[in-house]
Amino acid sequence: MSQATQGPVITKVSELSASEARWVTLQKIEYLDQTGASRTWEVATRKTRGKAGVDAVAMGNVLLHPSRPPSTMIVIQYRPPLDAYTVEWPAGLIDAEETAEQAAVREFKEETGYDCKVVSMSPVLAADPGMTNTNMQLVMVEAQLGESDELPEQRLDDGERIERVVIPLSEFYDRLVEYTKKPRFVIAAKLFHFAAGMEFAKTQKYY
Amino acid sequence: MSQATQGPVITKVSELSASEARWVTLQKIEYLDQTGASRTWEVATRKTRGKAGVDAVAMGNVLLHPSRPPSTMIVIQYRPPLDAYTVEWPAGLIDAEETAEQAAVREFKEETGYDCKVVSMSPVLAADPGMTNTNMQLVMVEAQLGESDELPEQRLDDGERIERVVIPLSEFYDRLVEYTKKPRFVIAAKLFHFAAGMEFAKTQKYY
Repeated sequence: MSQATQGPVITKVSELSASEARWVTLQKIEYLDQTGASRTWEVATRKTRGKAGVDAVAMGNVLLHPSRPPSTMIVIQYRPPLDAYTVEWPAGLIDAEETAEQAAVREFKEETGYDCKVVSMSPVLAADPGMTNTNMQLVMVEAQLGESDELPEQRLDDGERIERVVIPLSEFYDRLVEYTKKPRFVIAAKLFHFAAGMEFAKTQKYY
Repeated sequence: MSQATQGPVITKVSELSASEARWVTLQKIEYLDQTGASRTWEVATRKTRGKAGVDAVAMGNVLLHPSRPPSTMIVIQYRPPLDAYTVEWPAGLIDAEETAEQAAVREFKEETGYDCKVVSMSPVLAADPGMTNTNMQLVMVEAQLGESDELPEQRLDDGERIERVVIPLSEFYDRLVEYTKKPRFVIAAKLFHFAAGMEFAKTQKYY
């Protein structure tokens, strides 16, 4: 992959003050616990949450092709926080005036090029509850593909570069694990947990 | 649940400077993207990562009881960042000198009271790659229970209060969804994704 061989380079990492930050910030929470004792907790929060009350959506997607096995599309992009290429389901922040469902359809189109149908929406989920109040919804979508081989054009923002990979659902877990053997590739935890859950259900001996 | 009826109360939320923070901080990353253009990214990071190079572990667990269906234990605790009770698998930060596997066994014992056997370790996964460099490993564990009904004693830190709930694996997804109907309860995204993956594999019509 060309991204990996001539990839981005971090030139400087510096401390960022909460007031200077535009996208994220830090807060100190003071609270009384269940015994009445006074405690504090440090939390990172997004500054961008809109009227939906939810920060982000991720699209668990099934691509239905007339003559190929049912598949899912993962996206690979350079993520500065990790200085690595992450393997994720298409995802994005919900705009200020959008519903989660609208954001799902819009972001899926932007990142994959496909129109999709929303099949189900998860409850609002906590992304990383010990550290942040960030929340998200998993939106399951389907895209009906034509016979053509060509990937539709993405609608990426200036500077965005997102590689698309189509994986048959039956190979989902194994193909994710393969990526972890490549240098500078990291799998997103939520995506991996879904695939691991599928694999667990398929291979478990418990019930 | 008594926690929910006489639960903790947040008394103050204030901005926290990165230098004052002990557990988390904010950084500004400056980088050159794949086209050579100069860009910046804001990131929240933990200050506690030790020699394992991984922040945290979560324990996907199977409880094997002589006469009951195979089950999993979830833990419910008040999480100040969300001002809510979160439903999660047992999890915790890896101490400075620990391996991920050691942390998994220690934290599982602390939160559930049970000794466990590590069955498998996931690759290192990115918790929320757009916002943070936080990473974790999903550690699948098994605990062999005796016939007794009694839950073993937890080894919680001062002030920690963690409720344990045992759920048959066959009811995992449905029971999680039930929790989202309770006021002030939120499911952790990674846990939900695993259960949703199991449910998808069981009920999907695609392959």
